[in-house]
Amino acid sequence: MSSPIIVRGVPSVTENPVEIVERKGIGHPDSICDGVVEELSRLLSRHYMDEFGAILHYNVDKAVLAGGRVEVTFGNGRLLEPIYILIVGRATTEVIQNGSVRRVPIGSLVMDAVYGRIERNFRFLRREHVVVDYKIRPGSADLVGMYESRSEVPLSNDTSIGVGFRPFSPTEKVVYEIEKMLNSREFKERYPAVGEDIKVMGVRNRDKLKITVAMATIAMYVHTIDEYVELKEKIRDIILDKFSSEVPYELEVHVNTADVLEKGLAYLTITGTSAEHGDDGQVGRGNRVNGLITPYRPMSLEAAAGKNPVSHVGKIYNVVANDIARRIYEETDAKEVNVRMVSQIGKPINQPQIVDIGIVGNADEGKIKSIVNEELEKLPDIRKKFLEEYIHVFRVFHSISRYSSFSSFFSTTKFFSGK
Amino acid sequence: MSSPIIVRGVPSVTENPVEIVERKGIGHPDSICDGVVEELSRLLSRHYMDEFGAILHYNVDKAVLAGGRVEVTFGNGRLLEPIYILIVGRATTEVIQNGSVRRVPIGSLVMDAVYGRIERNFRFLRREHVVVDYKIRPGSADLVGMYESRSEVPLSNDTSIGVGFRPFSPTEKVVYEIEKMLNSREFKERYPAVGEDIKVMGVRNRDKLKITVAMATIAMYVHTIDEYVELKEKIRDIILDKFSSEVPYELEVHVNTADVLEKGLAYLTITGTSAEHGDDGQVGRGNRVNGLITPYRPMSLEAAAGKNPVSHVGKIYNVVANDIARRIYEETDAKEVNVRMVSQIGKPINQPQIVDIGIVGNADEGKIKSIVNEELEKLPDIRKKFLEEYIHVFRVFHSISRYSSFSSFFSTTKFFSGK
Amino acid sequence: MSSPIIVRGVPSVTENPVEIVERKGIGHPDSICDGVVEELSRLLSRHYMDEFGAILHYNVDKAVLAGGRVEVTFGNGRLLEPIYILIVGRATTEVIQNGSVRRVPIGSLVMDAVYGRIERNFRFLRREHVVVDYKIRPGSADLVGMYESRSEVPLSNDTSIGVGFRPFSPTEKVVYEIEKMLNSREFKERYPAVGEDIKVMGVRNRDKLKITVAMATIAMYVHTIDEYVELKEKIRDIILDKFSSEVPYELEVHVNTADVLEKGLAYLTITGTSAEHGDDGQVGRGNRVNGLITPYRPMSLEAAAGKNPVSHVGKIYNVVANDIARRIYEETDAKEVNVRMVSQIGKPINQPQIVDIGIVGNADEGKIKSIVNEELEKLPDIRKKFLEEYIHVFRVFHSISRYSSFSSFFSTTKFFSGK
Amino acid sequence: MSSPIIVRGVPSVTENPVEIVERKGIGHPDSICDGVVEELSRLLSRHYMDEFGAILHYNVDKAVLAGGRVEVTFGNGRLLEPIYILIVGRATTEVIQNGSVRRVPIGSLVMDAVYGRIERNFRFLRREHVVVDYKIRPGSADLVGMYESRSEVPLSNDTSIGVGFRPFSPTEKVVYEIEKMLNSREFKERYPAVGEDIKVMGVRNRDKLKITVAMATIAMYVHTIDEYVELKEKIRDIILDKFSSEVPYELEVHVNTADVLEKGLAYLTITGTSAEHGDDGQVGRGNRVNGLITPYRPMSLEAAAGKNPVSHVGKIYNVVANDIARRIYEETDAKEVNVRMVSQIGKPINQPQIVDIGIVGNADEGKIKSIVNEELEKLPDIRKKFLEEYIHVFRVFHSISRYSSFSSFFSTTKFFSGK
Repeated sequence: MSSPIIVRGVPSVTENPVEIVERKGIGHPDSICDGVVEELSRLLSRHYMDEFGAILHYNVDKAVLAGGRVEVTFGNGRLLEPIYILIVGRATTEVIQNGSVRRVPIGSLVMDAVYGRIERNFRFLRREHVVVDYKIRPGSADLVGMYESRSEVPLSNDTSIGVGFRPFSPTEKVVYEIEKMLNSREFKERYPAVGEDIKVMGVRNRDKLKITVAMATIAMYVHTIDEYVELKEKIRDIILDKFSSEVPYELEVHVNTADVLEKGLAYLTITGTSAEHGDDGQVGRGNRVNGLITPYRPMSLEAAAGKNPVSHVGKIYNVVANDIARRIYEETDAKEVNVRMVSQIGKPINQPQIVDIGIVGNADEGKIKSIVNEELEKLPDIRKKFLEEYIHVFRVFHSISRYSSFSSFFSTTKFFSGK
Repeated sequence: MSSPIIVRGVPSVTENPVEIVERKGIGHPDSICDGVVEELSRLLSRHYMDEFGAILHYNVDKAVLAGGRVEVTFGNGRLLEPIYILIVGRATTEVIQNGSVRRVPIGSLVMDAVYGRIERNFRFLRREHVVVDYKIRPGSADLVGMYESRSEVPLSNDTSIGVGFRPFSPTEKVVYEIEKMLNSREFKERYPAVGEDIKVMGVRNRDKLKITVAMATIAMYVHTIDEYVELKEKIRDIILDKFSSEVPYELEVHVNTADVLEKGLAYLTITGTSAEHGDDGQVGRGNRVNGLITPYRPMSLEAAAGKNPVSHVGKIYNVVANDIARRIYEETDAKEVNVRMVSQIGKPINQPQIVDIGIVGNADEGKIKSIVNEELEKLPDIRKKFLEEYIHVFRVFHSISRYSSFSSFFSTTKFFSGK
Repeated sequence: MSSPIIVRGVPSVTENPVEIVERKGIGHPDSICDGVVEELSRLLSRHYMDEFGAILHYNVDKAVLAGGRVEVTFGNGRLLEPIYILIVGRATTEVIQNGSVRRVPIGSLVMDAVYGRIERNFRFLRREHVVVDYKIRPGSADLVGMYESRSEVPLSNDTSIGVGFRPFSPTEKVVYEIEKMLNSREFKERYPAVGEDIKVMGVRNRDKLKITVAMATIAMYVHTIDEYVELKEKIRDIILDKFSSEVPYELEVHVNTADVLEKGLAYLTITGTSAEHGDDGQVGRGNRVNGLITPYRPMSLEAAAGKNPVSHVGKIYNVVANDIARRIYEETDAKEVNVRMVSQIGKPINQPQIVDIGIVGNADEGKIKSIVNEELEKLPDIRKKFLEEYIHVFRVFHSISRYSSFSSFFSTTKFFSGK
Repeated sequence: MSSPIIVRGVPSVTENPVEIVERKGIGHPDSICDGVVEELSRLLSRHYMDEFGAILHYNVDKAVLAGGRVEVTFGNGRLLEPIYILIVGRATTEVIQNGSVRRVPIGSLVMDAVYGRIERNFRFLRREHVVVDYKIRPGSADLVGMYESRSEVPLSNDTSIGVGFRPFSPTEKVVYEIEKMLNSREFKERYPAVGEDIKVMGVRNRDKLKITVAMATIAMYVHTIDEYVELKEKIRDIILDKFSSEVPYELEVHVNTADVLEKGLAYLTITGTSAEHGDDGQVGRGNRVNGLITPYRPMSLEAAAGKNPVSHVGKIYNVVANDIARRIYEETDAKEVNVRMVSQIGKPINQPQIVDIGIVGNADEGKIKSIVNEELEKLPDIRKKFLEEYIHVFRVFHSISRYSSFSSFFSTTKFFSGK
């Protein structure tokens, strides 16, 4: 049964008089939650593949982070209360094979996911700053049932919508790139005082683009209010220098506008994230799978992070919709492409109810449909993408260098070798 | 300083070939989370007003629900593991006035919020089914600083966007109304077997509207698979009867499509919610403030529930944008209205960066702008709306009758009277 | 194989120049912990018997109570933070029988145990004052192994010692009786201001017996400092009246000696227990199984509460040692009797390593040994005692009337009846 | 006011036909709890001294450990679920000095205490094996009141008893020494397969002393059942060799008697402690302050670990009673000495109600009383002992080498230095 594919013209997002674009950086409390459960999802998938030859049922797309408490001042600081992260979900924790029970080291996988992510994404946030707990219970029998016939195409777990578009508008591009730059390894080496919790907001009103950067700083590297002001100005100048010519708009940049410097209120942190003091987080409240929040674009509310890549369409369709949009944009004459895919619960994942393609400009409808059909055919194998690379979800990874070797740590989930 | 107001023509949502609309009912795990923190927000606001004459700093817009575990079959069931809810946030818990410390009964307010909501929204979910905990710490000093000059207009806590539209399309209307009907007191009296966890999804493909209802049933009232099938058919027929003539589309209705009846897999519950077994929840992952999820409309990702109504624009602007849309729709010739409001952090809440109005049809721009300005002027008083009524957030309330008197319970936060 | 029984003369405890005796009343935080896990133990045992025909492996002898926080003054008070109880242990939660899994409603049993105990033992402590959570995981395979051959005598789970003695000395008797009186239903009806958290300490120095009573009062019934002082004096007088003639010592009674009345510091509570504010608790830190703490007597450190009555000698032997002491005291000419029994891990519970009997006065050694052997023979059936009555552990039960019917609540663990 | 001192003759413990002595080693779950809260107590005391010049109010004498879950076999193993430790107590977390609030980094102190202890006491138990949380709330006002006049002698916080004796009987000595030997650095280097969780039980029946050792082994170093059996025999032989001549009894030694080797059930661990699988723990359920559990001796039920060394007599008196016993034993002709001290709540700690001295043999009563009075005079300074050395509580420390440098970790509670 082939799915109905609709192709239609839509207005360009750049013709809107207004655009609003936001990106929460890797150190934002919501991004931490997303990153942690997506890492756990990947570790779980790999573990199931390695030990059972198939990705078993799980869903770990819920987590909450309660911010800690610190005392911090220029050049100085200490932790009063640690950050607390609770991961919530379902997973297959026992498998009965050939009459004996085989267990899944869920606790080790959680610890590896959280501490692994923290160690890779932060320079100054350490294990002793974070209390980790989890409530991951065995799944319900009926959902498990859906995984039974594994040779066939998996069935959609829900009626859900996936959304994607290409290309990024100039506003989107610059918001995205600013955070990537500020959180790159090179930048951190040059400006170690810039923390990992960076939120970039772009508001375009016709031909004026106002960028607001909320950027944690590392108190250990900022010893006085003058150094702090200097740093803010430096960052603003770097952004203006690098991005003014990349957007066809008048660019204005503001850094840490909530400061009240006359009262000594500055965005100082010990660890690089506002999660250390006062800011809480949850999964699914931050960037969409393309790395942005774009209220002037179609968006899905689905939290992709932590979901199972086999049949959870809230994850899969959002990634595939972006893939389809990219291919149509690259392989046809379309100037802009929007893709919305609607699953139907209980049907094979490669049979969406509707694939709705919005096009700016003219493009060959036949070519578009054949791209869609090719991607749908590849759908049953998409889980591999999530196993091998995980750049697709949140696009927040790998930007910080690994300051510490991590290999010894990971061994907790492995059987250590005998004699 | 007056805010820039943009008025512009936009295409009608009903002209789209496709529409997707979802509503999570009051018993859905995400709705429980939203409901609980919004109730807590209201209780906190009232408490601060009563005891301190002003709404002090708080933000309780994070919570996670870990689903419980049950054994359930036709006519029968029991709880194996309770539901667990963790509420996370910040609040002012101590106020130093005239040299002495006054404390806020945060624990009692949390218990009242959770158990109060459960008792009002559910018939069979009871206190002993739910473990409640909270991590609500004192807020950071700088955020508290923003509340200081209380006689003035509060300052926006964030750069954020609020979204609203009017009127509901026929698809939106029918999705919304179906859940309201199924969860109404009258309906529950007639069909007590219908649980409170009801998710309605509408997918319109041109002139075909397919409604999918996922509806928990109460095992105690469903004794056999035949009764179950009969109930599903009855509900489908009622929906078709009542709504076929209300939409200009061919209406198709499916109930509980994930059932596998030949294996005995049916959507049975003890308590009326899937949270009892396997389904987890979070704040901000369900309905927007208009009660719907509408990926074919502009949407805000902001979680309104639990936020402070004084200065949290992620809450206020979403409500006001809907109010403005409603007034423009009612008071001008506009056929449809979209409103997007962008705040700027640190500026008075009645001075948004942009108010962007999309209009279908012709409407008097001057009239529109004066409506916007009137609503902006009223903004500083909006907190009262959240205190007196709370129909604005999620629109999920009051639909279930109060089976138990609740007055005695609420007294835990009050000083009991002396002699 | 018969166990070695040693019978020997020992000095009388009343001849000591000093005696120290303590009793923590039913409302003390440690007693709450003991009571809650012992109740859970009883519910678990019954459940296993009813559903599986045998008491399966469990051990729930750990719990911690974190005191809440209140604001309280004469005539008035409110809860700021609830009490938190975490129950920790092991239990069999799944049984595979005839190829299908049968589950144990551990969560419901915990809720029933905690809330049931609270409702029976307190008048003003309510469910919304207490957050309950539990970490009860499946037991280790090797311990489970010990239960396999159920037709035989269970094997001791540990090398452990049980201690008992008879009769109570006059000091022990009066300490024990004072708490029983103050926490009796009749007394509470007459003096409702007396809370349930009552600690009685008796220190005898030769012929002077000083009784110190630390007694929570109910703020709602104590409106002024004068009423409070009056109540303390009344209680002191009642104790002197009733017990002066019952002890051959000069009796001195002090009530609430930690008060600092000139600063308004009095032992006021909302709920009747110090657990509401500042006082934490644990299992096994309060009364021994005879209801007393007696550092001038032999004592076992074992926490009896929460242990499994089948093979946990830390529970069984303490009860049996008291039974043996009682019988020897009643059936022979012994004036006082001490009993110490030592188990050996992995051997049948009716084959202790040693039974060591200390006797004051002369008694027929043959008769003593036959009593011991009779009780050892009955040991395999002792579990029934714990199922049917639970007066043996802590002796803290039944003293407060059941103000509320509790029957509806308990149904959560039962399958409710069908049509 | 001088306290009544009673000196009287008592029978010798060695003349009893029976003795029972137990020692829980540093790796036992109860010892972990004791060690962790005592470490926290020491860190808190030091912190208060350093920052405020006085030890402020706290009491952290409650904690519960929920055992984890592992899969382990000869030569191999992995963690399924981590150990969970919850620390419960009261502490002064904010001090208002000169109008400004100074905060106590309670969270960092907890993390340092737990992870510090684990790293010093274990070779294979790592941070990622243990989830740590805490509920430490501000104390009640009236208890805080007792600390006010700091220049004076602190007042007893409770009516409580402290117990001590000297010398160890041969049975006590050998039980104590066996654990010390098995957990010594030298022994671990020679026999790395011996874990840290070692329980030694000695049961003497007249002239036969039966020692039972329950000893975790490290699966990584035990590759086969033959190696396991060999190790057990080796350990038994070493104990017999070393201790047979040190006791005037016939010595019998059993190692890991709960093994069922024909079923492959052996005491294997990954981390060296049974807390990794199935065994839970609590504060105050293990060794008394002299490092032993001795039901044939007078014992206090008080948990010394975690208590405040300023005024918590449940801690102080147990340590002082042992000090007094030691001095009387060393400085007089007494053959054995028992000491029991009873505090009175609200009175200076150096004014106990009674000091009751039991003596075996003849000793100069005047000399005894002067020793007691000297020690009582030194009492107000005893807190220093707990700050500088902490060998007095549990005597379980320092036995394992520090395999990892720990200095960097501890810096989390310190202000890091500026430029």
